Amino acid sequence: MQFEVQVPLGQHSYPILIGQKLLGDSQWIAPRIRDRALVVSNDSVAELYLEPLLAGLQGLRIDTLVLPDGERHKTLESAERIWTHLLSHRHGRDTTLIALGGGVIGDLTGFAAACYQRGVNFVQVPTTLLAQVDSSVGGKTGVNHPLGKNMIGAFHQPQLVVADTSTLESLPAREFAAGMAEVIKYGLIRDAAFFDWIEQHLEQLRAREAEAVAEAVRRSCEHKAAVVAADEREAGERALLNLGHTFGHAIETETGYSQWLHGEAVAMGTMMAVDLSVRLGWCPEHQIAKIAAVFGAFGLPTAAPKELATDALLDAMRLDKKVAGGEMRLVLLRGIGQAEVLRAPDSVHLRATLEQVRMS
Amino acid sequence: MQFEVQVPLGQHSYPILIGQKLLGDSQWIAPRIRDRALVVSNDSVAELYLEPLLAGLQGLRIDTLVLPDGERHKTLESAERIWTHLLSHRHGRDTTLIALGGGVIGDLTGFAAACYQRGVNFVQVPTTLLAQVDSSVGGKTGVNHPLGKNMIGAFHQPQLVVADTSTLESLPAREFAAGMAEVIKYGLIRDAAFFDWIEQHLEQLRAREAEAVAEAVRRSCEHKAAVVAADEREAGERALLNLGHTFGHAIETETGYSQWLHGEAVAMGTMMAVDLSVRLGWCPEHQIAKIAAVFGAFGLPTAAPKELATDALLDAMRLDKKVAGGEMRLVLLRGIGQAEVLRAPDSVHLRATLEQVRMS
Repeated sequence: MQFEVQVPLGQHSYPILIGQKLLGDSQWIAPRIRDRALVVSNDSVAELYLEPLLAGLQGLRIDTLVLPDGERHKTLESAERIWTHLLSHRHGRDTTLIALGGGVIGDLTGFAAACYQRGVNFVQVPTTLLAQVDSSVGGKTGVNHPLGKNMIGAFHQPQLVVADTSTLESLPAREFAAGMAEVIKYGLIRDAAFFDWIEQHLEQLRAREAEAVAEAVRRSCEHKAAVVAADEREAGERALLNLGHTFGHAIETETGYSQWLHGEAVAMGTMMAVDLSVRLGWCPEHQIAKIAAVFGAFGLPTAAPKELATDALLDAMRLDKKVAGGEMRLVLLRGIGQAEVLRAPDSVHLRATLEQVRMS
Repeated sequence: MQFEVQVPLGQHSYPILIGQKLLGDSQWIAPRIRDRALVVSNDSVAELYLEPLLAGLQGLRIDTLVLPDGERHKTLESAERIWTHLLSHRHGRDTTLIALGGGVIGDLTGFAAACYQRGVNFVQVPTTLLAQVDSSVGGKTGVNHPLGKNMIGAFHQPQLVVADTSTLESLPAREFAAGMAEVIKYGLIRDAAFFDWIEQHLEQLRAREAEAVAEAVRRSCEHKAAVVAADEREAGERALLNLGHTFGHAIETETGYSQWLHGEAVAMGTMMAVDLSVRLGWCPEHQIAKIAAVFGAFGLPTAAPKELATDALLDAMRLDKKVAGGEMRLVLLRGIGQAEVLRAPDSVHLRATLEQVRMS
């Protein structure tokens, strides 16, 4: 089973290939390489998948750069390592960067591609569920700054995304679940039927059955592609993809990006967004338990850590990049399948949500 | 006398205002600021023009950041200083960066704007002739890397360019001449009549008479805007603007960016391009002296420093970003007013040019 989802962005259009054992297949990536390429990966992923990937690129001029694993390496310094490698190995404007790894490698490599000689081609080969359904699609690239996540970045579309679902078999349970948080998000913001499908396939998804996983990735990518195509630069509908993210980023910032995976923070943040939606009378109250149950089925947290100070979270949310012109914007639910942006939320309700949605 | 030149780039279109005493006029920049702004400048320029600029922005929330002067500060570290300032002062996505200075400040600030939260608005207030006629128009932004000039960057269009020609009165003679090198370039690559006009107004231009200078800036900006509009991302005609630049960048790289001003290196590089054009039979030989005389009238160098090794220059040219897919491309002249790109120049002729066009 193999799917191809198009991201229709005019001259920046590109396909996402989804299926088993695509990594080493020489018919996908190799024809896109014009001159030379640099594969950027991290040590954990490289150990498993660098060789299979290179097997599909035989006969081409390929360099590799393996960085240490972890979000704390998603920095300007790592981008600089990539640029120095490219320059010292004399890569020209016709080079292609290939990101082999999860969201950190994808965002970082995409950013390096965006800024190398004012923009070179790149290919995303996401090896985590989170990257396959979210970060590898849509052209958001960037690195973290000590004062905030993803604060330095660029919009830069890849030429191709290869989502090899067989790489998900080696994913630790926590990381698989973190990816599921984003899959569930698509159901919540724009597809009640997809949310129902997830609810009905909890067992198959938890067992990572190939067919169910590929279907979840395909439907997620279709949603992401549709939203991105409608709104490449995030003025309108694309903002809905940030359900749970303003809360989630604040949690990540306050816990130093290390304690919780991005998807886990998004799950917590989504439950906060749902709670606030219910407080405002936007969303039926009984959906709280329904949504929490689906997150819970994957072992995802459904409340924020108790020890985080409410004021610190509020402060971090205000700095979040979704804050524009001093006005905070939050994505909330009218109910499962329908999201909307709320500008300048009432701080009494917001504070109540931040205080109430806590681990017991 | 005041001119307005439009850069027609669809939704990225913007005006260039050209004239005397525009800097402190509150009707141009102030209405573009949506929330807050950060003025980035260097210590030399700030001393002269920061106060007048701020006088036109009264009542708005304006921060300032003054960096040390000089090309050696056009680095990723300086961009990081801007980002840290923006983040620690909590600038959101609706902020505007204002670049007050020459090409270094403009390129650096534009790059910082391109990558801050994936792109914020910026306004160019160029205070050198070079920046007014070249670097502030067209959206090329970037910083240098120890291994090459402008290797890290992005395309990011400003919302407005304010070219206050009264700021040119304080410009050192060498810098004014360096700007004239780019003015002359427009005549050479696409407007023989403009080249003639320059030849006929050497006295007025050397005396920096307001009318002649504004006219030179206007015609240069019109050329730059036309080329950029036809070809925003430099695949075709925009490459012609690089006349003299591949040679010039190599000279700058080999002399460490400090000994020669960019415009001086471009003048040297242009004479090399003319020499090679004559060697190939593209350009009439008598034009060499004609072109050298106009550069010379402004005190610009018309040959490369004797002490630079030909091999080192060749090497640096190969790494230049105009090298794509291992093939070197040079902009040459068919004659004054007509430029063309030559792919993969014959290395015997190229070497002869590099050896011959040397200071005596």
